[in-house]
Amino acid sequence: MLRTHTCGELRITDVNKTVTLCGWLQKGRDLGGMTFIDLRDRYGITQLAFNTETNPALCEKARKCGREFVLKVTGKVIERSSKNKILTTGEIEIEVTDFDILNEAITPPFTIEEHTDGGDELRMKYRYLDLRRTTVRANLELRHQVSQQTRKFLDEQNFIEVETPVLIKSTPEGARDFVVPSRMNAGEFYALPQSPQTFKQLLMISGFDRYYQIVKCFRDEDLRADRQPEFTQIDCEMSFVEQEDILNMFEGLVKHLFKQVKGIDIENLPRMTYTDAMKFYGCDKPDTRFEMKFVELNDLAKGKGFPVFDNAELVVGVNAKGCSEYTRKQLDELTEFVKRPQVGATGLVYARVNADGTIKSSVDKFYDADALKMWAQKFDAKPGDLILILAGQADKTRKALNELRLEMGTRLGLRDVNKFSCLWVVDFPLLEFNEEENRYFAMHHPFTSPKPEDIKLLDENKLGEVRANAYDMVINGVEVGGGSVRIFNKNLQAKMFEILGFTKEEAQAQFGFLMNAFEYGAPPHAGIAFGFDRLCSLFGGADSIRDFIAFPKNNSGRDVMIDAPSSIDDKQLKELSIAVMKK
Amino acid sequence: MLRTHTCGELRITDVNKTVTLCGWLQKGRDLGGMTFIDLRDRYGITQLAFNTETNPALCEKARKCGREFVLKVTGKVIERSSKNKILTTGEIEIEVTDFDILNEAITPPFTIEEHTDGGDELRMKYRYLDLRRTTVRANLELRHQVSQQTRKFLDEQNFIEVETPVLIKSTPEGARDFVVPSRMNAGEFYALPQSPQTFKQLLMISGFDRYYQIVKCFRDEDLRADRQPEFTQIDCEMSFVEQEDILNMFEGLVKHLFKQVKGIDIENLPRMTYTDAMKFYGCDKPDTRFEMKFVELNDLAKGKGFPVFDNAELVVGVNAKGCSEYTRKQLDELTEFVKRPQVGATGLVYARVNADGTIKSSVDKFYDADALKMWAQKFDAKPGDLILILAGQADKTRKALNELRLEMGTRLGLRDVNKFSCLWVVDFPLLEFNEEENRYFAMHHPFTSPKPEDIKLLDENKLGEVRANAYDMVINGVEVGGGSVRIFNKNLQAKMFEILGFTKEEAQAQFGFLMNAFEYGAPPHAGIAFGFDRLCSLFGGADSIRDFIAFPKNNSGRDVMIDAPSSIDDKQLKELSIAVMKK
Repeated sequence: MLRTHTCGELRITDVNKTVTLCGWLQKGRDLGGMTFIDLRDRYGITQLAFNTETNPALCEKARKCGREFVLKVTGKVIERSSKNKILTTGEIEIEVTDFDILNEAITPPFTIEEHTDGGDELRMKYRYLDLRRTTVRANLELRHQVSQQTRKFLDEQNFIEVETPVLIKSTPEGARDFVVPSRMNAGEFYALPQSPQTFKQLLMISGFDRYYQIVKCFRDEDLRADRQPEFTQIDCEMSFVEQEDILNMFEGLVKHLFKQVKGIDIENLPRMTYTDAMKFYGCDKPDTRFEMKFVELNDLAKGKGFPVFDNAELVVGVNAKGCSEYTRKQLDELTEFVKRPQVGATGLVYARVNADGTIKSSVDKFYDADALKMWAQKFDAKPGDLILILAGQADKTRKALNELRLEMGTRLGLRDVNKFSCLWVVDFPLLEFNEEENRYFAMHHPFTSPKPEDIKLLDENKLGEVRANAYDMVINGVEVGGGSVRIFNKNLQAKMFEILGFTKEEAQAQFGFLMNAFEYGAPPHAGIAFGFDRLCSLFGGADSIRDFIAFPKNNSGRDVMIDAPSSIDDKQLKELSIAVMKK
Repeated sequence: MLRTHTCGELRITDVNKTVTLCGWLQKGRDLGGMTFIDLRDRYGITQLAFNTETNPALCEKARKCGREFVLKVTGKVIERSSKNKILTTGEIEIEVTDFDILNEAITPPFTIEEHTDGGDELRMKYRYLDLRRTTVRANLELRHQVSQQTRKFLDEQNFIEVETPVLIKSTPEGARDFVVPSRMNAGEFYALPQSPQTFKQLLMISGFDRYYQIVKCFRDEDLRADRQPEFTQIDCEMSFVEQEDILNMFEGLVKHLFKQVKGIDIENLPRMTYTDAMKFYGCDKPDTRFEMKFVELNDLAKGKGFPVFDNAELVVGVNAKGCSEYTRKQLDELTEFVKRPQVGATGLVYARVNADGTIKSSVDKFYDADALKMWAQKFDAKPGDLILILAGQADKTRKALNELRLEMGTRLGLRDVNKFSCLWVVDFPLLEFNEEENRYFAMHHPFTSPKPEDIKLLDENKLGEVRANAYDMVINGVEVGGGSVRIFNKNLQAKMFEILGFTKEEAQAQFGFLMNAFEYGAPPHAGIAFGFDRLCSLFGGADSIRDFIAFPKNNSGRDVMIDAPSSIDDKQLKELSIAVMKK
């Protein structure tokens, strides 16, 4: 080793030891007779001291070193006269007797500090410098810890990690695949897996009983702010279990992770049906760090001559506690907010419950004091509260009110990143109708089992009413995991493909291997997958998953550091029997 | 859970418990009044007993169940009258009171037994059934254990696992890349990584200090028997280290794995230079489970009028101890063996040392008894030994003798799969000359550092003499890992690219990001990568890595189970701006 110690480990008890450290020059300070350098490595920062009088040549050499120079330094550990309470090494410094410059550095394009002056694009281009920043490195250390603890928990529960293939077969169902031309099989393509779904089911059929894998998955979708073309999943499957067993097992995993990684004890996870989630929160991943449940007002609001409400399928609102003093400007902002195309409401109705108990609404013309009092009762609104109401087509209005509720939660500081609220959302619909394509799609995926008691609805052509044994784990309004009990019967699986519009031939061509496997003794099985990047960002209290990925891609799917993707040469194309088409 | 216990856990102490088990019907036996079923799951086999007299209907139902049916069985644990000493559950059986058929099974295409009647192709097509066989599952359980213990060791040594990207940039140097057309960047391609080499070096530049990853890598090469297009590496890198530190650290890893996984204590690994490996074993990955070192005979063999030896660059042989009684037929077999095109020798000379000390050779015409006695002394051949000699161009002869040595090792039973002999091969040449392309290639890769004392040879144009700080770990004649100290100086790296025939522009286009990174303070660093599949197969005492991969591909790169690769539809091609070219 070029060093005897790291820059994070020396303490007052090490005084008088002769040590050698290696690291980067974080910062230098010249104070008349002394020069100080902060030397940084992964483990911490140690102060180096050079004395002009005792060793002028060495001091001169030190003064010529710039930021991010790589140094190897030998000296004696001494007690500092002015101690630094923030640094763990802050009680000591190194009286340097000798040092080598292992490598020089030109000036970095941004400062390597917690709060850097580098913009997003610059930091991505020089990601290797961005990763030197303590915050970014801490994110990846957290990620490592979450992965270690996940493995520890699952290993102890007898799960076995099995690597499934990356070069698999393309299937048109679901999101778009990345494909890989095969040189040895001209004109044919592999696909990169969107998930190891069929493989983990085959492993259950093989009797592996409990499988997991922390695994890269790929989706060629248009990227939104927080999606990556390659992402990581904690992928799990169990045999001879029912939904309840999966919920208990993975509730255990998440509790373990919170305890070990964050030191937080999590309560048992409440369960909410999909129907309730939509009714009370307007979305299937409610942020339950705060209450502010939806209150439906059709019975009290309609038939009083206010055309907006009378023509609406649904009148629904929330009680923003303590907001009755909102100014005209603030209310206008909220109105603008709900009218944004992403939210999609046509307007906002409010009712303030004043300190004296009187109620002032934006629709006083149609509703008298008694009517408004009944509103307040229904919303459990007390003096000081503000009722916010939207109306219109039911689904759209719930979706818009969900946005408004989250906005109010943010404004009221109810969405603390250091507070965690976890729940299961259960009883998802099996199918959802797609207007554009005029057919049903699997809400989870085509291998999800309907609830046994709902299977008869499949035959009665009440497809939209069929519930699935499917479940999502939601933390702070983020879907961190989801899964289902799987179909393990060939005929039921064939029926599902039929409902999803597959011909028998298509089903056989794409999933024949799985349906054949069902014939050789498939056990009941169920599973779940967690978005690992997302879980890490949640644990790290951050919004973006990008900060928890070492080398992320930008919104065009580019790695701007290595400049990928890039063109390849004609020889390569020819070998692969493909050509690039001009647009 | 559908079960109370697994099929592997019940013991005599559980007698009288009422239990529920789930599993597959391994085998049924009807013995007059009793029917017995062996029920199998991942954890073991438990015998089920059905009594015709006490419950005829249940017994009848049991008799109708075929092999591989999935059953859920409830009954009482009872002591067996005739115990099975081989099974851990062999002292008990279940007196079944009730059971459900969870799923039926048609007859599998081969028997699910340790020694199956299924051929290779059939087992690959029905890999999910092959994986039910205890031996195959045990291989994957071993793999899981090797991975767990690798992580445990490296975690404790402060290594941090960082996931590097799978969608990267294609580089023409080295093996052929798999590429992925980018839809969002028409006409451009990602490449799948052949290794995370440049990324792990960037992580060192970022200050990560100790990195590892168990990671999938990809090479689009023509597949030999034991190569897979996707394979797994244990990939590692350290900063502020010298070669010695890497050797010690990863010697520690391998010792840990042998101890924890195999219960074997491994001695400190001997080191052998590349030059010695070639001189004494004719290859850079000698199987040192047995001695049989090469002995060079030029001084004694040449100039005696035997034209084959006189015209040879090298006369070299081995002493096959105890083989003096080999028959004419056996010697002919060996001659045929060395003359095979894969081995490439033109003939074989032998000399038997008889029990009475006389020596009989196939070249007695040219060498008298005294001359042969000197041979015997040089080979340290005792009565009963057989000297085998090849001659010709030095490199080719060494290569051929290596094959002969291994063949003799096998014939003499010296290559026991349960015996392990590990070593480091060090001081590899930096460059090797490729006759076809008339240029030097990097023997390891272009980022490998020359030995500091040999750098001057680069300028003196003695390229073939430059040694690298590169090392391979060899176990039982298999290269399980290899690595090097890396270049961390921009100018030296630029010179390497120049030597390898890159123009400045090419070097910049392909590796500009790395060379730029070297400008911002790159630390000295070094690393290693282990072939994880190979390591597992070695631990499992098997020749083929395929048995240690859950879903391997065949020699044409096909997954015959899922039938990949396959054609994709025109819409997909169009979106990707590519077309398939007819050959």
